[in-house]
Amino acid sequence: MKTKADLVGKRLADLIETPEIPETLRQAMAYSLLAGGKRLRPVLVLATLEAFGKSIDAGIPVACAVEMVHTYSLIHDDLPAMDNDDFRRGKPTNHKVYGEATAILAGDALLTYAFETVCSAEEAGAPSGRVLRIVRELASYAGPRGMVGGQSADMEGEDIPLTPEQLRYIHQHKTADLLVFCVRAGAILAGASERQLSLLTRYANNIGLAFQIQDDILDVTGDETKMGKPVGSDEKRKKSTYPALIGMEKSRSLLKQLIEEANLALVEAALEDNSILRALAAFIIERDY
Amino acid sequence: MKTKADLVGKRLADLIETPEIPETLRQAMAYSLLAGGKRLRPVLVLATLEAFGKSIDAGIPVACAVEMVHTYSLIHDDLPAMDNDDFRRGKPTNHKVYGEATAILAGDALLTYAFETVCSAEEAGAPSGRVLRIVRELASYAGPRGMVGGQSADMEGEDIPLTPEQLRYIHQHKTADLLVFCVRAGAILAGASERQLSLLTRYANNIGLAFQIQDDILDVTGDETKMGKPVGSDEKRKKSTYPALIGMEKSRSLLKQLIEEANLALVEAALEDNSILRALAAFIIERDY
Repeated sequence: MKTKADLVGKRLADLIETPEIPETLRQAMAYSLLAGGKRLRPVLVLATLEAFGKSIDAGIPVACAVEMVHTYSLIHDDLPAMDNDDFRRGKPTNHKVYGEATAILAGDALLTYAFETVCSAEEAGAPSGRVLRIVRELASYAGPRGMVGGQSADMEGEDIPLTPEQLRYIHQHKTADLLVFCVRAGAILAGASERQLSLLTRYANNIGLAFQIQDDILDVTGDETKMGKPVGSDEKRKKSTYPALIGMEKSRSLLKQLIEEANLALVEAALEDNSILRALAAFIIERDY
Repeated sequence: MKTKADLVGKRLADLIETPEIPETLRQAMAYSLLAGGKRLRPVLVLATLEAFGKSIDAGIPVACAVEMVHTYSLIHDDLPAMDNDDFRRGKPTNHKVYGEATAILAGDALLTYAFETVCSAEEAGAPSGRVLRIVRELASYAGPRGMVGGQSADMEGEDIPLTPEQLRYIHQHKTADLLVFCVRAGAILAGASERQLSLLTRYANNIGLAFQIQDDILDVTGDETKMGKPVGSDEKRKKSTYPALIGMEKSRSLLKQLIEEANLALVEAALEDNSILRALAAFIIERDY
């Protein structure tokens, strides 16, 4: 995981090091893109390719693109009009350093640049038909029926009590959808069958929901130093979360159940080597940051 | 122009009429996307296809996508942290109606949905290689080295006097780049030669700069009722403009020169029928809205 994360981090630094971008904008983009983070999404893309026994080369542009999309969503999410957060990954948020206007533009720029970056998978050897399918899935899973839709529903759900179904809708789209994209994109690049794609989608949906529940748990029990941001913010904002809705114990057993489901789907998908994807599922519930 | 604009308007209404988008977000997207406007960018895509004697069918998804990108840029541009505008096309701006958070998300959603929409040119008969090239160009001309870069430079240039070169850089990227994309996308769909592509790029760069200069002129001399927004905002914001920098008379003669250059490039491109593209160039400097 560390090797892959470092590889993607280096490529991201190269991609952002272009004199054709106005300097302030470039710095604001780089500030958030190169702030570290777990790089979980890029790693998922590359690990899926490896699970099929394929080279990760064509996956690197896709991995970089998804990290750009994730980073843009964090920058916009932190804005005063949205979550109004001052810290992220132990550093002041983008708008705290560059101002709101530049933070909005840096987010817009990263989202758009992601689509340019994903296209370069073609030069890395992927057939144009597969790259086009990945472009379409990125737009779909990150767009109004995907991640942005989830963020919108999440915002509207603040301050009002949600049903478990509504909370699941939010978690599905706000968090799981982009993870589903990562696994599907790796599988599409690898030439997976439609059956494998659908089983890997099930794997990713389960780890995606688990990821968000673990996030909610860490917001209650986590260590601020490890997290790089204040804990307790969900309660402060009166956000519905699984620990608040069904209790901590049931949340933890739901987590385990989701990871079991994910592993079952992995086995059914009959991959060449599912060990890294299995390890990533375990990491998601064991992590403390 | 009217027929093509109506065709695109209808398709946009269909594209946004999907129950899979959370309702508030969907309404905010539709509010700005279906607020009318000249639809100049979609018309340019379709007119270029016609100039090659091709059917406009495969161009419609591309035309809709570029209007989504244009609309997202207006929504974000109008935000309080950016230009802080209250009116656009005679209606309150998006954040005035839906609030800042939803306006930010509606912009994000339209930008992302544009990339999904452009991909559907494949179903309308365009080969995947051409569609992928168009995706890449959309991202490039709309991204940090294109439109977003221009907006960032524009913002930084407020309150300080600019050189004509700096002003040209801003106009090129903020305004001309997306028009260049429209013409190139139509030409790529039509199977233009690289020489034709480069001549059409010259055409579009010239009409793009002319478009922005005419905008600057209308901000001084325009009629608020026809424009649908207050005039005089450039001066209020101490923005560098061509009328302010070189005077009204020289701006008008520069306009004419740009349109002549555009028409020369059109003739050299040896298209089947350049009459609509020629008429669009004329419209750009004759318009009063």
